[in-house]
Amino acid sequence: MSEPEMRPKAEKLDAADELAGMRAQFVLDDTVYLDGNSLGALPRSVPGRVEDAVRRQWGSLRIRSWDESGWWTAPERIGDRIAPLVGAAPGQIVVGDSTSVNVFKAVVGAVRLAAEKGDGEGHAGRPGSGGRDEILVDATTFPTDGYIAASAARLTGCTLRPVTPDEVPGALSERTAAVLLNHVDYRTGRLHDLPSLTASIQAAGAISVWDLCHSAGALPVGLDEHGVDLAVGCTYKYLNGGPGSPAYLYVREAHQPRFDSPLPGWNSHADPFGMTPDYTPAPGALRGRVGTPDILSMLALEAALEVWDDVSIDAIRTKSLALTDFFLECVESYVPGGAVESLTPSPHMQRGSQVALRCADAGNVMRRLIDRGVIGDFREPDVLRFGFTPLYVGFGDVERAARVLGEMF
Amino acid sequence: MSEPEMRPKAEKLDAADELAGMRAQFVLDDTVYLDGNSLGALPRSVPGRVEDAVRRQWGSLRIRSWDESGWWTAPERIGDRIAPLVGAAPGQIVVGDSTSVNVFKAVVGAVRLAAEKGDGEGHAGRPGSGGRDEILVDATTFPTDGYIAASAARLTGCTLRPVTPDEVPGALSERTAAVLLNHVDYRTGRLHDLPSLTASIQAAGAISVWDLCHSAGALPVGLDEHGVDLAVGCTYKYLNGGPGSPAYLYVREAHQPRFDSPLPGWNSHADPFGMTPDYTPAPGALRGRVGTPDILSMLALEAALEVWDDVSIDAIRTKSLALTDFFLECVESYVPGGAVESLTPSPHMQRGSQVALRCADAGNVMRRLIDRGVIGDFREPDVLRFGFTPLYVGFGDVERAARVLGEMF
Repeated sequence: MSEPEMRPKAEKLDAADELAGMRAQFVLDDTVYLDGNSLGALPRSVPGRVEDAVRRQWGSLRIRSWDESGWWTAPERIGDRIAPLVGAAPGQIVVGDSTSVNVFKAVVGAVRLAAEKGDGEGHAGRPGSGGRDEILVDATTFPTDGYIAASAARLTGCTLRPVTPDEVPGALSERTAAVLLNHVDYRTGRLHDLPSLTASIQAAGAISVWDLCHSAGALPVGLDEHGVDLAVGCTYKYLNGGPGSPAYLYVREAHQPRFDSPLPGWNSHADPFGMTPDYTPAPGALRGRVGTPDILSMLALEAALEVWDDVSIDAIRTKSLALTDFFLECVESYVPGGAVESLTPSPHMQRGSQVALRCADAGNVMRRLIDRGVIGDFREPDVLRFGFTPLYVGFGDVERAARVLGEMF
Repeated sequence: MSEPEMRPKAEKLDAADELAGMRAQFVLDDTVYLDGNSLGALPRSVPGRVEDAVRRQWGSLRIRSWDESGWWTAPERIGDRIAPLVGAAPGQIVVGDSTSVNVFKAVVGAVRLAAEKGDGEGHAGRPGSGGRDEILVDATTFPTDGYIAASAARLTGCTLRPVTPDEVPGALSERTAAVLLNHVDYRTGRLHDLPSLTASIQAAGAISVWDLCHSAGALPVGLDEHGVDLAVGCTYKYLNGGPGSPAYLYVREAHQPRFDSPLPGWNSHADPFGMTPDYTPAPGALRGRVGTPDILSMLALEAALEVWDDVSIDAIRTKSLALTDFFLECVESYVPGGAVESLTPSPHMQRGSQVALRCADAGNVMRRLIDRGVIGDFREPDVLRFGFTPLYVGFGDVERAARVLGEMF
């Protein structure tokens, strides 16, 4: 097919799109923004709320806002707003710190949980006991996970073993303490089989840690349903929380009493204002907190999450797959054969909400695309990355992106 | 003396105050705000800058702002703005994460530096080697430091030994790896002797880590001059960065090549966008970075730091001591004998920028003070805490606070 056929198809798909009205809730322009998997667009609900947080809550109420404006409880309150988007009941998620810091909490916490399980005697102070001294980490994952997992391994006396997600079932053993996996690969957009991998990990007596950065807000995760042990994620991609907005940590309710954070800051104390020299962890998800929460960024995120009030994650997933299907179809139609090769799997079961195309001279191609108003990003060494945020990307955008891409060759 | 004498004295002091004009740069009201040691007041430079960061940088430029708006380099750029306030040359401070997280980086990093020094062979992977397996921590300090130091000790195979700062010189030995001290005690307002303690710690072959939360922006610190090894601090007290604004980490230039962070996130990689599986730390202070920086809070802080452009920290210190001297004088004058007892040392060499008064039923007394427009805070079990921010507190405020306090008894 060609332009005369793809354009009307895009119009038809846009006309039938039940989420089309959501776009009005975001600040957008006439570019095609396919980089929401890196930084989500600005929700219109955010600027006024940030201004209120700065001028009234900080400027006028000052210190009183810790109580009166709900600053103190923001990490768990906002965690509970994220919870339904990742299939978690309330009380299991706290927001705060960066994804990297939360990966550290989760991996060390996982090793300690596994050590406890191993001998049943609660040697939480001695990870690697119970014979479980190996951490498996997705070698193809976003590199910070690997770097932080290596640090966690070094500090807990474990060995880090890089594997691909496919290799996990075969690599699991009675030595495995924890397994850190990305739900969707940041580069290829491949979606991994969370339910089956989690089940394998747990059958081997190990603890699963999932990084949801590229799946939360783009597809159903089902943390509770699939029995995930621990999970982390960022909030500035499909959750549109703003640049560097705080990440989150999920600790399954059943693990909370024994979750033993390597970052036991005063905010996770059972009585934080008692300011006692002895540390007693708070119950529940709160023990994932560390220091004073970053309120301005936190409240921007809270406002951004309001756009989810009337949207189901299933509807998001349906549209996301339709968008990536249509993009692949348009690329097939517009781009000369052999100029690009999709790294993103075709089966829906294996696809996140992005399409990664391998292409010669990809850095330059992406620069030219951006000059033409099609915003994706480039990943070393040869990948064009296009993210599809169903809340604000339409089928007309998709057609235009592929058409402009075709004109590059 | 009494009111007829103290009021004119306050007026005279205010008239002679060279920093009096700075108050106009802050959003304040007719209360007496003596809680800037908990949350600094809003600088007038902040709201417009935050609005620009949200609406233009995020809303319009979106992902391009990582380069075009200088988001990516904000942690080290803002670190360099803090540097002169704590007596550091550029290139040694990065901003990001909470104080607690930075304490963790610093204490683990210190143990590793000490281990390297101990045997000279670079066993960075095995802290506690070289026979240095003890961490001294100020037992009277803000508790998060103790909790985090305990976690760092547990993960590095060290023993944590709580001491008072006075006990440090006698407690140092060839076993001491690191010593974590607060420059000013959060409860009593006592200023510890940083130059002399740092010298003792280093003479014993150990690494000094200073927590500057209650001193940075209130008095000269002299990190470079006094040879401090590592330091951390928050930015929401005397630096007025806003609620939960990001903290900072100082790594002395000479230590940077061997500083080995326990949180080696992708932002601290020498080539972060190479996204290679192997971790190579960036040179300089950048290796104290971890994950994606929290931009909105970071840029609010950057705007807040502009108020320091025309102020010397020596002038701040001079006024701070005059304020606390005058407050103690007014308390002596207005408050019935025996009703309160100052926990803050009289000698200037031992005083930070706050006054802590022990008092019966202190929680209720503080509530009544706040109702009367005098904002301090209460710390368990019996402490009224008054912080004096020289940038915006005047001598008339001080007189009024003491007078209202006197009316409580």
